[in-house]
Amino acid sequence: MDVEAHGSDLPKRLLRKGDQFILDFGGHRTGHFGFKLVGEGSSIDAPVRLKVTFGEVPGDVAEPLYPYKGSLSSSWLPEEIITIDFLPQTVRMPRRYAFRFVKVEVLDTSPNFGVRFFDTHAIALTSASSQPAPLAISTPEWIRRVDEVSIATLRDCMQTTFEDGPRRDQRLWIGDLRLQARASYVTMPNHDLVKRCLYLFAGLPRESDGFLPACVFEKPAPSTTETFILDYAALYGSIVLDYLQASNDLAAAKELWPVAYRQIELLLKMVDDQGLFQAPKGYWAFIDWNMSLDRSASMQGVIIYSGRRLCELAQLTGNSEQVKPLSRRLDEMTAAAHQHYYNTAKGVCVSGAKQQISWASQAWLTLAGCLSREEAAGALRRAVIEDKTSTQPTTAYLYHHVVEAMVVCGMRQQALELIKSYWGRMVDDGADTFWEAFDPNDSTFSPYGDVHINSFCHAWSCTPTYFFRALHLLDT
Amino acid sequence: MDVEAHGSDLPKRLLRKGDQFILDFGGHRTGHFGFKLVGEGSSIDAPVRLKVTFGEVPGDVAEPLYPYKGSLSSSWLPEEIITIDFLPQTVRMPRRYAFRFVKVEVLDTSPNFGVRFFDTHAIALTSASSQPAPLAISTPEWIRRVDEVSIATLRDCMQTTFEDGPRRDQRLWIGDLRLQARASYVTMPNHDLVKRCLYLFAGLPRESDGFLPACVFEKPAPSTTETFILDYAALYGSIVLDYLQASNDLAAAKELWPVAYRQIELLLKMVDDQGLFQAPKGYWAFIDWNMSLDRSASMQGVIIYSGRRLCELAQLTGNSEQVKPLSRRLDEMTAAAHQHYYNTAKGVCVSGAKQQISWASQAWLTLAGCLSREEAAGALRRAVIEDKTSTQPTTAYLYHHVVEAMVVCGMRQQALELIKSYWGRMVDDGADTFWEAFDPNDSTFSPYGDVHINSFCHAWSCTPTYFFRALHLLDT
Repeated sequence: MDVEAHGSDLPKRLLRKGDQFILDFGGHRTGHFGFKLVGEGSSIDAPVRLKVTFGEVPGDVAEPLYPYKGSLSSSWLPEEIITIDFLPQTVRMPRRYAFRFVKVEVLDTSPNFGVRFFDTHAIALTSASSQPAPLAISTPEWIRRVDEVSIATLRDCMQTTFEDGPRRDQRLWIGDLRLQARASYVTMPNHDLVKRCLYLFAGLPRESDGFLPACVFEKPAPSTTETFILDYAALYGSIVLDYLQASNDLAAAKELWPVAYRQIELLLKMVDDQGLFQAPKGYWAFIDWNMSLDRSASMQGVIIYSGRRLCELAQLTGNSEQVKPLSRRLDEMTAAAHQHYYNTAKGVCVSGAKQQISWASQAWLTLAGCLSREEAAGALRRAVIEDKTSTQPTTAYLYHHVVEAMVVCGMRQQALELIKSYWGRMVDDGADTFWEAFDPNDSTFSPYGDVHINSFCHAWSCTPTYFFRALHLLDT
Repeated sequence: MDVEAHGSDLPKRLLRKGDQFILDFGGHRTGHFGFKLVGEGSSIDAPVRLKVTFGEVPGDVAEPLYPYKGSLSSSWLPEEIITIDFLPQTVRMPRRYAFRFVKVEVLDTSPNFGVRFFDTHAIALTSASSQPAPLAISTPEWIRRVDEVSIATLRDCMQTTFEDGPRRDQRLWIGDLRLQARASYVTMPNHDLVKRCLYLFAGLPRESDGFLPACVFEKPAPSTTETFILDYAALYGSIVLDYLQASNDLAAAKELWPVAYRQIELLLKMVDDQGLFQAPKGYWAFIDWNMSLDRSASMQGVIIYSGRRLCELAQLTGNSEQVKPLSRRLDEMTAAAHQHYYNTAKGVCVSGAKQQISWASQAWLTLAGCLSREEAAGALRRAVIEDKTSTQPTTAYLYHHVVEAMVVCGMRQQALELIKSYWGRMVDDGADTFWEAFDPNDSTFSPYGDVHINSFCHAWSCTPTYFFRALHLLDT
């Protein structure tokens, strides 16, 4: 790939029909792209037509985007054709893009003139406060780099909401918000942004019963769709609790309390007489994108975890009385979980009719406090480290919860190794920001049928910095 | 072609990937195109990408623009690809276009939603004053229609200058300006616009000697190129004279006098001892695009005609003394023209070593007053009407001067018939505005190798309304 390192030599090149260049901004940016275009020749007697392609990774600008084979809309493919009528002209590309690389192809000028590009520049956008100091120089190099990439990922997803990814979707999801907010508190806190996101959800509940949607579209006006995710709704209160502890904004926490409480109230109706959560048909339990995952045990864990955190929030907001029955119910569910999902003989949690052993089940039942510390450590060791046939995560979202569960039960060294093997490997493969999808054995892997539609700066992948800085995992 | 007549039914159609429609605005417009785009479906979860093609004639939107075979820049091809991030959205296409038809293709939405177009509209731009009343209903239908199309052509070329064509080039040329200004005085006068154009040329003379460039680029800042056309420079004073007579703006005429005088002064240096104009090598004498035309006789006519009109201007601006030697020189040139270019035996003007008989030579030597009225009428009759082998015009610019010459020597009926056979035939072929290039026998004819790059609203074709309204040719 013929890449212009800084754009500084670019003005020396007089470009004509068919010429092209690729700029490398040295790191990922969410924002705008601009330049000054000057014509040179006997007569600037026609418009200039350019094709501009924005790349998060080299493949975006080095490989043709068409024919496109993906299942998501091709309108997300990051390219534009623009026509500039009069030269010289200062051009600012009309939309917001996510990019490190920019490829510019001169589709045509006229036989009478060529063009030179001056002052090619990115205008990076973020609502993050100033970046944190790097980790101490004594910290292992790979940890410092994973931390930097985590922070860059978070920074470029922090816009007017916490976006899931700035290239594509650009949507606010409860699941992503929870992880991003946690990472932000120890790096680039913006309490107003978290608060704004919490209220966006609180303002758009399902009319019939107050259940929260899984995601929100912010523009052109806040709105949502008929997408409900059981575990995401459960975790809303956990975000409010984190926010309160980070910001001390008790007024907001009190105002949001009924919304948080309502989610658990509704979800407890889906718990049967044995104390087991039973997802109703037609409802989406997410946990991870792995379609072969049996989610029964994980969902039991998510509901208990979320309920426990809601009780903590109740203490802080003066609602202890209201949650007393809930607290008792959670105790019953915890006992039922241990009895139903923990296989004492095997020393692991199992889920579903086929007694599936998955990373997800161990992680969530650990985080929910359904296992003793020893049981949890044993289960995680067996399922995650020893058993190569267990059902694994396909997303950083579930990797996060596995790492967190390991920390909870004292497996700090193993947690660090898991971060290294997943996020560290992405860095080894050239990531500036952490990716939405990553298969170390297939660089063209895409959940959507075409790698060029993947998002390479994806919010829920940003949490290693949380483990390093909030849980001090780097001192392990 | 599946054309939406008014756009009124368009909102009833929910459009998805691959769908398209064509709007017909019922007449030519120079300006902007806008619409309101609304999404409809389970989730408006992606941008909308559209391809928009602007057609002056049906072929522009009914036939593919690519592969493009033309010699002019493909950047003039009237199409855009735009991506709209958030719906609903009011969209105004970013540039100015020339169109009657607009084709919109939905490149993609997402599987979850379609789009509806509301309020599709054109914002027509012109600097013409309000349109004149139509010709009397008793006027022959074809004349009324040719008049309407002339006025539409002029209207859509009157912008911040008198453009040669709003689709392509969009440039101010002396030759086009002269004809447009004349047509405007009797239809949609805008004296300030003519004045502005005269000063744009006056402000951009060749530094070395004050010779005027043939054309001016207005944007982003007035500028010109090394394009000089001998006959265009000569005719500058004629535009000033027309302007003075239309506007009574004596102050401007006086201020522009030295510029006008300087052109003739320079051109007279190219006249030899016999009184014959000899174009120096490397200079461009235009007259018409017909490359086989011998221009000697025509240029003699243009210089004399322009000189005579400069003398008229001198009378009105108090510069009579200055032009006394010029007047004598023009008398000598007139005698030399008659002697050298008029073949008494054949009763026609001839030009060049091969004694070429052309419409151009008869027209310009008639307009210059080099022939008696009888000689002129005879020459025009023989060369234009009877002699099918004479060298003919390829542009409306020269057709104009042939018609004008016929009127000058009393051939009003033949002049009207010539208008009918040329402009009337274009109307019969569906013109809403008069075209840059027209070959009745080849609808794909282009001077540039590809009909899709032709301009179908071209300024110098607008003068029939001048003949009808200023020269009252419709009463013939």
